[in-house]
Amino acid sequence: MQDTPMLDALTTIVGDSAVIRDPAAMAPFLEDARKRAHAEALCVVRPRDAREVAQIVRLCAARRAPLVPQSGNTGLAYGSLPFGMPQAGLMSLSRVNAIRNVHPLAMTMEVEAGCALRAAKDAAEAKNRFLPVTIGSEGTAQIGGVIASNAGGVNVLRYGMTRSVVLGLEVVLPDGTIVNGLRSLRKDNAGYDWKQLFIGTEGTLGVVTAAVLKLSPLPSRAATALVSIDNPDSAIRLLALAQDRLGDSLSAFELIAALCFELIEKHFAQRAPIAPAPWHVLIETGGMSDAVTGEMEGFLAEALEEGLARDAVIAQNTQQAAQMWLLRERMANLGNREGRMVNHDISVPIERIPDFITAADAAVGAAFPGARHLTFGHVGDGNLHYNLLVGPEPKTENVNACVHRVVTDFGGSISAEHGIGRYRKADLLLNKSAEEIALMRRMKAMMDPEGVMNPGAVL
Amino acid sequence: MQDTPMLDALTTIVGDSAVIRDPAAMAPFLEDARKRAHAEALCVVRPRDAREVAQIVRLCAARRAPLVPQSGNTGLAYGSLPFGMPQAGLMSLSRVNAIRNVHPLAMTMEVEAGCALRAAKDAAEAKNRFLPVTIGSEGTAQIGGVIASNAGGVNVLRYGMTRSVVLGLEVVLPDGTIVNGLRSLRKDNAGYDWKQLFIGTEGTLGVVTAAVLKLSPLPSRAATALVSIDNPDSAIRLLALAQDRLGDSLSAFELIAALCFELIEKHFAQRAPIAPAPWHVLIETGGMSDAVTGEMEGFLAEALEEGLARDAVIAQNTQQAAQMWLLRERMANLGNREGRMVNHDISVPIERIPDFITAADAAVGAAFPGARHLTFGHVGDGNLHYNLLVGPEPKTENVNACVHRVVTDFGGSISAEHGIGRYRKADLLLNKSAEEIALMRRMKAMMDPEGVMNPGAVL
Repeated sequence: MQDTPMLDALTTIVGDSAVIRDPAAMAPFLEDARKRAHAEALCVVRPRDAREVAQIVRLCAARRAPLVPQSGNTGLAYGSLPFGMPQAGLMSLSRVNAIRNVHPLAMTMEVEAGCALRAAKDAAEAKNRFLPVTIGSEGTAQIGGVIASNAGGVNVLRYGMTRSVVLGLEVVLPDGTIVNGLRSLRKDNAGYDWKQLFIGTEGTLGVVTAAVLKLSPLPSRAATALVSIDNPDSAIRLLALAQDRLGDSLSAFELIAALCFELIEKHFAQRAPIAPAPWHVLIETGGMSDAVTGEMEGFLAEALEEGLARDAVIAQNTQQAAQMWLLRERMANLGNREGRMVNHDISVPIERIPDFITAADAAVGAAFPGARHLTFGHVGDGNLHYNLLVGPEPKTENVNACVHRVVTDFGGSISAEHGIGRYRKADLLLNKSAEEIALMRRMKAMMDPEGVMNPGAVL
Repeated sequence: MQDTPMLDALTTIVGDSAVIRDPAAMAPFLEDARKRAHAEALCVVRPRDAREVAQIVRLCAARRAPLVPQSGNTGLAYGSLPFGMPQAGLMSLSRVNAIRNVHPLAMTMEVEAGCALRAAKDAAEAKNRFLPVTIGSEGTAQIGGVIASNAGGVNVLRYGMTRSVVLGLEVVLPDGTIVNGLRSLRKDNAGYDWKQLFIGTEGTLGVVTAAVLKLSPLPSRAATALVSIDNPDSAIRLLALAQDRLGDSLSAFELIAALCFELIEKHFAQRAPIAPAPWHVLIETGGMSDAVTGEMEGFLAEALEEGLARDAVIAQNTQQAAQMWLLRERMANLGNREGRMVNHDISVPIERIPDFITAADAAVGAAFPGARHLTFGHVGDGNLHYNLLVGPEPKTENVNACVHRVVTDFGGSISAEHGIGRYRKADLLLNKSAEEIALMRRMKAMMDPEGVMNPGAVL
């Protein structure tokens, strides 16, 4: 597709080198990290600052041209990939990437949208502070997308979702207005907290250009353990005991189905440091004193005594802890090594997890005989990556619909942390009520009446 | 004011006994807790459930009649008091007050808007769980208002504002639509998180009728200490040390000016258990093991050694800790006992607190000679109750404007936790940018185009 006046106008704003048209150079921006989906665009435009972002947005608004903002392009729901819109501009925020400051005393940092999450975490850790958003893709994911997708990850149990660490935001509205709310205040009830509109709305209501983030004390001690258990019911009873004994020093509680460890051994040659069992749990606590290890040992002894756990292994050093976490990361990277995998990122009320797994396994077994279960996830948050190995026959949307029907029956969410993007749109309508969808549409109409900002995503 | 058709219609919805017209019976709903402000209304209407709330709202929408929702009526910013609107209906949520469930395993509870905060906290604690919103008025404040005002309090440092504990909401929109989002999910990125629209917007975008709240482990151990220090700069350096040593087990860090203790001794005959000093800090940590006391002792020893603290006293038992907290509560209840008090509920970036106090004291001293300072507050959150004892002459709005100009210069908020209501409206326009105000107005226009829902509040 050619649109010379548009390309000329973009070049005037950002300069020649920042408007990419070459297909090979555009490719990394137009396919997802797993290389499953491929999009098209008129061009990729790479502004340097919020002022250029605003000029680009105003240009698109004036021409009613679709604009898709993108930061690290690590999303799993295709929220920043324009499909079927060869005339869309893809705006990469990756050059708007400064770390503006880190204040260890105030425990805040100000960072631009294109900064990699890992770089932001490193800058905080260099000043003995912790940015508590921990996700597998953090080396590549960028702050703008982390905020736009309200990223979750393994520390939500203790620190909440990304929403809870956003203190201030600068955004460019779909009409090109820059709204600067870069305050570093932990409490601000002066007027409506408008920044909430832009967190988790996947770039459909405006473009995040910079943020002030809340930091936490950096735990200096951690205790990490692998525990084998009989079934998911033991997992949630073990979780309750952990919460009673360890309080909110508990920072991770991850459930792992037996097949996960089997396939990691097969495909990555890494063996779990504990005997096989139907299920395992990876538990971590963090704190500021050596007491964390003793508290973990006491908790595990009680769990074994009460029959909630079969066996338990505590990491003796940071290398062993890192190996345990590597097992966890590799679950997310099994991809299609073993066969065709269909992923689900669901959540249900925590106390209903065992019944949900039973019901979903039964529904899947009836509809897709031979499907194998690779369930793992953040059970401390009610969030399961309910992944299935299936044969070549079933359509992905039919597998999704089967699982998501059970999720909806259990009062759950069809996207706990990955967002809706363009991948989960159809099932969103099944999962949320008509009143809720109407409210979402009203929000979209308020902020983007012309429908130019990331059209086709979420709604 | 009489409006017989309206009164008849309301009576049809809720019954005769639930429409209050008698001035004496209406009085508690129409004046604030400090009895400073007096409002008028056509009547007080007391629905029993969300269905009746929706009928009332639809009636008001159809007649374009102003409706002011109210729960515990403990607000300090007059957000639920209709001034100058004798035709307004005041809708009290206090009979919509059930605690529907408490799930200790899932760590959630579902509660209706009119339930007292203290009652909800008690119900959670009965199941060994903690609802971590702790405010002075919690015996009277009700959940609906706590959510509508995004209440803060003394535990924000560790647990965040009310927003961070709201998992699900049921609201009645200004057109009478009931939107049920009562999910008990800790993670849900399926579509826009519309409930954020109703948290902290003071009942101007809709009426909260019920909520699912996130609970935390109930700390079984606490350590409470009073520390004397030289100046606010020591306070923030002490805070940084506390965060390094105690991590996020630190649950309160309250700064107290010398005059506070003097006046509490004078008016309440309670003496602080520590020698007088220019400033004090009240510190609390909580956890699950006896290690908390040792950690507090170690931290205080280090603080004394480094010269950050002059003296420190650790509560030896829960009675002594309760006495320390009683001192803190009484600061908020000094009212006008000593003279005329003008209150401010401001926040600034934490590292700027010492300079802010210097600058604000200078500005106040120049404009209002003889004013005395009763500064105290949640310095761990950057939130100061910068209260002043002044003579009878200066107008309250002039004192406010003087302080709020300095706050705005320091990138602060003129309402850290109390909200804007009808009391802080003028200064909101000085404190937030034109773009931010425009965005707030757009949100109001989206949700309440007729302007019938709590008109005159916030904007």
